[in-house]
Amino acid sequence: MADFSAYIAGQKERFLQELEEFLRIPSVSTTPERAADVRRCAEWLRDAMLAAGIGEVEVIPTDRHPIVYAEHVTDPDAPTILVYGHYDVQPSEPDELWTTPPFEPATRDGRMYARGTIDDKGQVHMHVKALETRLATGAGIPVNVKLVIEGEEEVGSHNLESFLRDGADRLACDAVVISDTAMFGHDIPCITIGLRGIVYMEVTVRGPGHDLHSGSYGGAVVNPANALGAMIARLHDENGRVTLPGFYESVRPIGDREKEDLARLPFDEAELLESVGAPELGGEAGFGTLERLWFRPTLDVNGLLSGFTGEGAKTVLPSSAMAKISMRLVPDQDPDAVARSFKEAVSASAPPGVTVEVRRFHGGSPWVAEVQSPVFEAADAALESAFGRRPVFIREGGSIPIVPLFEEILDAPVVLLGFALPGSNPHAPDEWLDLSVYEKGIGALADLYDEIAARGV
Amino acid sequence: MADFSAYIAGQKERFLQELEEFLRIPSVSTTPERAADVRRCAEWLRDAMLAAGIGEVEVIPTDRHPIVYAEHVTDPDAPTILVYGHYDVQPSEPDELWTTPPFEPATRDGRMYARGTIDDKGQVHMHVKALETRLATGAGIPVNVKLVIEGEEEVGSHNLESFLRDGADRLACDAVVISDTAMFGHDIPCITIGLRGIVYMEVTVRGPGHDLHSGSYGGAVVNPANALGAMIARLHDENGRVTLPGFYESVRPIGDREKEDLARLPFDEAELLESVGAPELGGEAGFGTLERLWFRPTLDVNGLLSGFTGEGAKTVLPSSAMAKISMRLVPDQDPDAVARSFKEAVSASAPPGVTVEVRRFHGGSPWVAEVQSPVFEAADAALESAFGRRPVFIREGGSIPIVPLFEEILDAPVVLLGFALPGSNPHAPDEWLDLSVYEKGIGALADLYDEIAARGV
Repeated sequence: MADFSAYIAGQKERFLQELEEFLRIPSVSTTPERAADVRRCAEWLRDAMLAAGIGEVEVIPTDRHPIVYAEHVTDPDAPTILVYGHYDVQPSEPDELWTTPPFEPATRDGRMYARGTIDDKGQVHMHVKALETRLATGAGIPVNVKLVIEGEEEVGSHNLESFLRDGADRLACDAVVISDTAMFGHDIPCITIGLRGIVYMEVTVRGPGHDLHSGSYGGAVVNPANALGAMIARLHDENGRVTLPGFYESVRPIGDREKEDLARLPFDEAELLESVGAPELGGEAGFGTLERLWFRPTLDVNGLLSGFTGEGAKTVLPSSAMAKISMRLVPDQDPDAVARSFKEAVSASAPPGVTVEVRRFHGGSPWVAEVQSPVFEAADAALESAFGRRPVFIREGGSIPIVPLFEEILDAPVVLLGFALPGSNPHAPDEWLDLSVYEKGIGALADLYDEIAARGV
Repeated sequence: MADFSAYIAGQKERFLQELEEFLRIPSVSTTPERAADVRRCAEWLRDAMLAAGIGEVEVIPTDRHPIVYAEHVTDPDAPTILVYGHYDVQPSEPDELWTTPPFEPATRDGRMYARGTIDDKGQVHMHVKALETRLATGAGIPVNVKLVIEGEEEVGSHNLESFLRDGADRLACDAVVISDTAMFGHDIPCITIGLRGIVYMEVTVRGPGHDLHSGSYGGAVVNPANALGAMIARLHDENGRVTLPGFYESVRPIGDREKEDLARLPFDEAELLESVGAPELGGEAGFGTLERLWFRPTLDVNGLLSGFTGEGAKTVLPSSAMAKISMRLVPDQDPDAVARSFKEAVSASAPPGVTVEVRRFHGGSPWVAEVQSPVFEAADAALESAFGRRPVFIREGGSIPIVPLFEEILDAPVVLLGFALPGSNPHAPDEWLDLSVYEKGIGALADLYDEIAARGV
């Protein structure tokens, strides 16, 4: 197999300058005011793919944010690999907690800091540079490649499903490669074989028609913020288990083989605790930390807002109180069933004197990989050659709702080759990308095409 | 006794124009950026008192907002009445819920709408106009009058206590009259004989050192917003009683006489419910609405803030969660003891994995009037002559922490003669003053001085 490391090392400075350009565009998909930036980012990516010589590249409009689609056809009879990623990013707030501004990439101690460095612009860029590397070194690409890079991952990939269904013929492929997941440690390349699903809800409790003076009315008018607190409390029992009816019914027990695999991983709980900065870890009774993160469902309040939240004291009995609450799901929980159960239980738990509205945002099913496919062997080999160590199979607590969708619609195995290091702060201030992992990862992705061609998929 | 109604009716238009000027100054004491406006408001009030011919008027600086002090000396041997009020106002937010802007007074259907119309600028203005009326009509003022109008009532009257203690000799008086309370209905003049006290706390629950991705960490890192919900829930039991140890120990039971008085009041629960706009009323089991408001302590969440609160979904495990929580107290609860008990119980209720900080803001003791004093008879008579109906004795759920302070420091009875109608929205959008009550109230306050002179105090 070809060795691309010399080319990648020689071009690294230029690669990183290009990546910084990509990161400077604030492609925050959830914020309507950023729509023009999201579009500009799609166009930037198209131009970068064209410059890399990948072939046909289009910016395909949707009713919200466009999809960047590229094709490199080598031989209609060769295997076809579809690469998926996303160029949109999470909001950066609270900006004041960033050491350097979120959209001004800054390199410190071998890490590049900016929103999107790891989730997922940095990893998308690695794929583009891997293809460029093969083409520029004359190695060529021994398979057909299709790239689907969307701009709505952080808002629920609303238009991706119809894009996949409507274009299933054009998008036909033998395997899907996605780089939007994490490594287990700096030197431990990983293939992620399980993801949690997600259901995201917003609960609004309404009491009086307007804010009241808490002295004149307190005690006789039901307080929506008091009520919301009680409703949130009721969602867990004293063992940290979620109390929604039927919540655990279809949760797969952790198998003996899975427990053995977990025990073999070099997991350092103290290190996790330190990176998190909490006084201690905690969660559902009877399970270890990795079991809680990978095999157990959870319910988290993501946001709370009610009444007066400024400095000082205001004696208000608020007219409403809002909570954003999401649940992470594991096989074989069904997001629709969980959302229904949540809505029913939360609505029923409201005390007299208030009304409750429950809205549902995006969701996604949990997923486990079909690890028997040859594309997993190819990924194994490519990572080993780049990192000098065989990858481990891990799971991830987060959700990539479109992973099960790809498998279903394109009827192809999905392999998750991710390069985020632990503690790299996706969705939080000071998100970063390790630059040595960036370099090795480009090598692994460039090599992956040879490994696939050698095995077939 | 003199009849001032013709003068008041003749001058009403001018009085209201002056009041509008007073209300246009956004004297929000809690907002540091408004400090210059608060000062400007004090100066406006000084000028208005001077124009009314009251006598000596000073703007006395404090370390925050000034006190306006005026004296009208008639005869050192005559009784002395001290009038207290405040010219500062609550913040106006949320401004978008006001029908017309909070600092642009607008009259609709016999009501003037603006922040401060009723709490307390409008009522302060009635006192000034009552004194003007006596002087302008040649009736003179048969007692000595001292006016203390402060600019920090809405932020806890921090400098008033030292002002009273340091100036106790100069401020010596036989009775204190305060107009910062409510009437029971449009035609029902009232003397308020009881106030609840207040303790205001802020609880901050902290978990991870920064916001985390709720997928990557949810289930293994304790969520401060989940924890805060549980902590809030634990503050009430299933009967709506506050669970803090010792909270009800010193609460006076409601006496038979008080129950009879309550039963005689023309209280319309349906009307209250309609003005509040809630689905139904509710509160501590075993008590009626007026009992809950006047005789029972309460605990209300005044504000909640955590994590992501914008439109849409952000999968964040927040690093902290904040609640503002206040308690209304009744005789003989002690604010310091309640604050200690709250801090201990809330700190102890935090689960492992988070830390809790409890801050205390301003507070005040509950209060019951000494209704045997002749000043109550005088107030009774003045209100009857102006409104054509004998006043009723009521209580108020709100707090005026300085009322017990006046009694203690100046050793004089306090009489609360208030003119806010039910539903007039103090501390809320669309605060309003009834203009016929404004006119009758000026008459009552002008007459009060004759009633006091006739009886002695």
